[in-house]
Amino acid sequence: MKEFSIIDTFFKQQSHQRKDVLLGIGDDAALTLVPAGQALVTTTDTLIAGVHFLPDAEPRTIARKAVAVNLSDLAAMGAEPAWLSLSISLPAADEAWLGAFSAGIAEMTQFYSIQLIGGDTVQGPLAVTITAQGFVPPEQALLRSKGKPGDFIYVTGTLGDAGLGLDLLLNKTTVRNPEHAQFALNRLHNPTPRLLVGTSLRRLANACIDLSDGLISDIRHILQASNCGAMINLDKLPLSLAMRESVEPQRAVNYALSAGDDYELLFTVSDEQKGKLEIAMANTNVCFTCIGQLNGMGNKLEFRLNNNVIDYQSTGYQHF
Amino acid sequence: MKEFSIIDTFFKQQSHQRKDVLLGIGDDAALTLVPAGQALVTTTDTLIAGVHFLPDAEPRTIARKAVAVNLSDLAAMGAEPAWLSLSISLPAADEAWLGAFSAGIAEMTQFYSIQLIGGDTVQGPLAVTITAQGFVPPEQALLRSKGKPGDFIYVTGTLGDAGLGLDLLLNKTTVRNPEHAQFALNRLHNPTPRLLVGTSLRRLANACIDLSDGLISDIRHILQASNCGAMINLDKLPLSLAMRESVEPQRAVNYALSAGDDYELLFTVSDEQKGKLEIAMANTNVCFTCIGQLNGMGNKLEFRLNNNVIDYQSTGYQHF
Repeated sequence: MKEFSIIDTFFKQQSHQRKDVLLGIGDDAALTLVPAGQALVTTTDTLIAGVHFLPDAEPRTIARKAVAVNLSDLAAMGAEPAWLSLSISLPAADEAWLGAFSAGIAEMTQFYSIQLIGGDTVQGPLAVTITAQGFVPPEQALLRSKGKPGDFIYVTGTLGDAGLGLDLLLNKTTVRNPEHAQFALNRLHNPTPRLLVGTSLRRLANACIDLSDGLISDIRHILQASNCGAMINLDKLPLSLAMRESVEPQRAVNYALSAGDDYELLFTVSDEQKGKLEIAMANTNVCFTCIGQLNGMGNKLEFRLNNNVIDYQSTGYQHF
Repeated sequence: MKEFSIIDTFFKQQSHQRKDVLLGIGDDAALTLVPAGQALVTTTDTLIAGVHFLPDAEPRTIARKAVAVNLSDLAAMGAEPAWLSLSISLPAADEAWLGAFSAGIAEMTQFYSIQLIGGDTVQGPLAVTITAQGFVPPEQALLRSKGKPGDFIYVTGTLGDAGLGLDLLLNKTTVRNPEHAQFALNRLHNPTPRLLVGTSLRRLANACIDLSDGLISDIRHILQASNCGAMINLDKLPLSLAMRESVEPQRAVNYALSAGDDYELLFTVSDEQKGKLEIAMANTNVCFTCIGQLNGMGNKLEFRLNNNVIDYQSTGYQHF
């Protein structure tokens, strides 16, 4: 099967069609229209077999996750998603693999009303790179750099579940309740990009980032960009029922602080905006938790347990 | 060296800065502004070690070529380039490699006044994916589908040189004159995206494509999309001095028709527009040659040599 028939067979027809796409798959490049008054938001993420997923992972799951992690970056900017470009490197043109993979892409483009507008298929080690594009009114974009001392720090959802799922997948740990195992594995394989939260936080949150490498690693980007310090209450970290019933408390905190792949949003909100935040978040149906506060102690990250400062060392996931 | 310091050290500072980039490298995504009245043009290409370049290729050359092949796709749409996103998969964080690679990216962004706005660095087999974005007034975009029977078929530059260069690199052939060898290798390593030609062809050319996989393979996309046939005069194919002095005529035609990586533009122009074409192309300083004509014989590709129809079979480069 040749490159062109791969694109035609598996990707050209299956993607959701949007009216702002003048020209999608099938020319030298795609042509799209960005709405007036909106900035274009662009992000790229690569998933590599053996690094970001197991070589024998389900192709549908790889596809869904590759889309989700990119949409999560758009969510962290407060952006609305619109278009995807996809590059697949595959050892051979495996039609069964491509059928399942393209089904995963189609599920995501349908669900999020986005369109696959182009890409590249090449022969090589299994890897997937997606570039996602979306829009946000430029003055409402959520940046890492706008945090202010005194801001309260929030996270969506629960933390550490994907890390627990990864350890289960790698047989590094076991949990007694199979439903809890299923939950953790699902959190690893099917992260939920918090798009509605992102757009709801426009004009409300000061700083925002998505949690991909682990809370400690990711919050440092906000501290550095905003020139702030932070205090995190370890007893306030939101843990799932599966985590609480399967893992002893200290390990659960480790997962929540240092494991990656949660794709929840971490954001900061001033005291004055807290009331509006409650109202805005109520419409998203996503739970959110205040886990600490920014302060003026430049770049210093402090942890408290039951109001006592404690020493906690960890660094989050590193790619190299 | 960690992912974040790779981006900061090698890529954040070195790229050309554009005023339409509100936020470049360093947040969850980039924020850019598309000018009013212009469509966004997006293309993605991946280069894999061992497939698109030798594993020990110069990192600066890999970087330059990865940018060039993407810009060539924008040129084929008649677009003006603006921004790049870059994903690098690297076996290890090799600082010398990254230094040379980022220098190649910086050279290209400076030269073309474009900005690197984001990307991803991951551990994995050596591969580079670039997504390039640019603009074109939507009604002036050059499509594959707008060719019409009677249109004259043109190509820029000379054909087949990169194919000759690849055979030299792989020791599959030799040429007597070392300057000719150098010329062919340079055409392989440093393709010139025909951006000025592309924008000059707005409102003049009917159909356009860039020659990446070989003329025969690429022109078929125009024939299919435009529902036309084509006649190609083999004696009109533009061949470089290096090609003519190094390779016997029949092999030269094979290179010109079937070797990939030339990144010249192939475009079609109606009889009425030929006069304007001469004037527009004169300003680009790029040579161009009429090599044949579109006709109404659906998807059929016919070859002539000195006005006699001849049988010529070849299929161009295939990725799988």
